[in-house]
Amino acid sequence: MPRVVVDVMLKPEILDPQGQAVANALPRLGVTDVSSVRIGRRIEIEFSGQPDLDRAREIADKLLANPVIEDYSIRLADPEESTP
Amino acid sequence: MPRVVVDVMLKPEILDPQGQAVANALPRLGVTDVSSVRIGRRIEIEFSGQPDLDRAREIADKLLANPVIEDYSIRLADPEESTP
Repeated sequence: MPRVVVDVMLKPEILDPQGQAVANALPRLGVTDVSSVRIGRRIEIEFSGQPDLDRAREIADKLLANPVIEDYSIRLADPEESTP
Repeated sequence: MPRVVVDVMLKPEILDPQGQAVANALPRLGVTDVSSVRIGRRIEIEFSGQPDLDRAREIADKLLANPVIEDYSIRLADPEESTP
């Protein structure tokens, strides 16, 4: 099914307390070789017809990302990429 | 920098009210060719040394995903894939 994936991440200079919390929990699991964890959003948009990247960009701009604190990237889902 | 990406999405049979809210807002933007929107999480794990997929899987199992309602997939970040 034609699908567009929008990845939204906080800009690198914005603090990510949620990712930080995960990173802080890792030593307790015995994991010491992780330097950073960042948590963002992955949005899958399914089109009824042809997937439309420009349309997806418009949706991301207006509804999915906050351009003040977030960056996003848009791509077609790999054909073999299932909903993970 | 060596990075592992974990994509966490709600299982297909689990209702996604957040995605549904976005989908419901689309006709007001004049978008009528989207059949579904699903919103999940994208987690970027940066390793200080070699990225370790098994380690990332352990982290995802224990900290990042709820296996009752979520599926996840793990992959190395494409070298050219910047923080979006």
